[in-house]
Amino acid sequence: MPTTTRIFNFAAGPAVLPLAVLEEAQRDLIALPGVGMSVMEISHRSKTFEDILHRAIEDIRALANISSDYTVMLLQGGASLQFSMVPMNLLTPGATADYIVTGGWAQKAVKEAKKVGNTNVAWTEGGEIFTRIPRQEELKLTPGAAYVHMTSNNTLFGTEWKGLPDVGGGPLVSDTSSDMFSRPIDVSKHALIYAGAQKNLGPSGVTLVIIRNDLLARSKDSLPTMMNYKVHADNGSMYNTPPTFGIYVLGLTMKWLRRQGGLDAIGQVNERKAGKLYAEMDRTGFYRGTAQKDSRSLMNVTFRLGSEEREKLFIKEATAAGLDGVKGH
Amino acid sequence: MPTTTRIFNFAAGPAVLPLAVLEEAQRDLIALPGVGMSVMEISHRSKTFEDILHRAIEDIRALANISSDYTVMLLQGGASLQFSMVPMNLLTPGATADYIVTGGWAQKAVKEAKKVGNTNVAWTEGGEIFTRIPRQEELKLTPGAAYVHMTSNNTLFGTEWKGLPDVGGGPLVSDTSSDMFSRPIDVSKHALIYAGAQKNLGPSGVTLVIIRNDLLARSKDSLPTMMNYKVHADNGSMYNTPPTFGIYVLGLTMKWLRRQGGLDAIGQVNERKAGKLYAEMDRTGFYRGTAQKDSRSLMNVTFRLGSEEREKLFIKEATAAGLDGVKGH
Repeated sequence: MPTTTRIFNFAAGPAVLPLAVLEEAQRDLIALPGVGMSVMEISHRSKTFEDILHRAIEDIRALANISSDYTVMLLQGGASLQFSMVPMNLLTPGATADYIVTGGWAQKAVKEAKKVGNTNVAWTEGGEIFTRIPRQEELKLTPGAAYVHMTSNNTLFGTEWKGLPDVGGGPLVSDTSSDMFSRPIDVSKHALIYAGAQKNLGPSGVTLVIIRNDLLARSKDSLPTMMNYKVHADNGSMYNTPPTFGIYVLGLTMKWLRRQGGLDAIGQVNERKAGKLYAEMDRTGFYRGTAQKDSRSLMNVTFRLGSEEREKLFIKEATAAGLDGVKGH
Repeated sequence: MPTTTRIFNFAAGPAVLPLAVLEEAQRDLIALPGVGMSVMEISHRSKTFEDILHRAIEDIRALANISSDYTVMLLQGGASLQFSMVPMNLLTPGATADYIVTGGWAQKAVKEAKKVGNTNVAWTEGGEIFTRIPRQEELKLTPGAAYVHMTSNNTLFGTEWKGLPDVGGGPLVSDTSSDMFSRPIDVSKHALIYAGAQKNLGPSGVTLVIIRNDLLARSKDSLPTMMNYKVHADNGSMYNTPPTFGIYVLGLTMKWLRRQGGLDAIGQVNERKAGKLYAEMDRTGFYRGTAQKDSRSLMNVTFRLGSEEREKLFIKEATAAGLDGVKGH
């Protein structure tokens, strides 16, 4: 194994993977023990890969305490493809989908939904700058909405939902791409959860979708087959060749998360880390937070430095000190 | 590095990668030289990843001698998503798309196209068994068709086009998933070429799309953004987070192909190998080929053994001898 110098990576995703995960993937890259082939080469129809996929899904279920009322899928296309798949599958003719718009990702999600059917922006801060999560009484929800869509964490703006909105028993759909498994999540309060893997779950190219089984009845045969949740659910995420290596690394990461003590333990670590950063920001006044205090994200702490010039200097010095991907925070 | 025993893998895809590619990926998995992060961790917006992506695309262009009239893209979703993207982008209202149906993949492709618009099966052998590629005079082409779709190689049935059909100057679309870069390809005779990477190009989870630029004008803004060729072309395959590790390994494979002497050299190797197998089949009569002689694939040689029992024994003995993935051939 070569001597390697690893640096600190602050990128929003693709982001840091646990070193133990990378080391195991490296050790077995040319030939999985007992298999004699790289995990990149094995057939997705082999017993070996089926075990990898099932084990990854079982570990996701265990980590988030997911009941048998839900199907867990690992698909392709990232959150961007989900922006279209959600309304194509769930926005029934004549119904309206509510979108709570707390940042740029939600703006993209509502844009795709508008191509499919009726939408209602249940809340937005207006303009291009977002500083907070709405209060319950600010939400203008549609009675009997096909679903209510939210974004759990907003990377660029450093805001994060502390709880979940009360959507009056209707289906809640959440894009959790940027904070999935950084803290505990109550799946039972959601109808659908989706997340690109590349923030905390694994490498890019894998998308986690958790759907309550009763919603699968809304997927029409007339949809493009690859956009149909029911097809993917019926085929156990194997309708077509899945991204086998990405699922393998995601599986290793899930095992690592369980070894750390699961989402409660990980959530406590992240809360402690973010707490220190916010305390320093509040104490010195040098770093100006972009998010209002009660909406602050524990996943990504964003701040400005008062002038463009000072920010450029900060990024330059951080990179020289081995801290990469600081810009954007 | 651990001692590893590698076996022979006959799977149709995911399939064998060059050992030199796996060794380089393994060496650099934890920290790319000069970068200090795993390629799975670097931001897709970093200079490092942009270089990896651009280099991979330049190598594809060099290998297949692709002119600037074409855009080369690396997307997600496999050939199965292309079955829908092709008609959604190219099948203009009122027009008809011709499908030459030479196997199960073409059957799936035409099924998706029917959801979008008018289709015409320009040729099929009928039933579920396919033994050959059609002759030119058998094709029932639609004058002014939106495009003509073909499948260059049919894995299960062991048939492969030797040349290309004459489609009278109309746009020819080819699914080359199972023989891309196993032999030279004349891109200039195609309007669009697509291929899942997992047969010869790299790991699963990456899809190669080569499109003639004039066709991009057909992509309507009303399409789901992720299904829109023009969006992906305008964004240089970076509209959303791409499958970074898969593209990296595909890039290593492209470099390896160039070191082998390119597609002419690879094509000669495959021709020699397949020639030996077919000669043995014809000599002994023990292996019964499933494809008619003039339609035989150089990529995958398929045969039966006369009885189910004999086939089971053959597969068992082959596996014991270190030959995996023989079933299906």
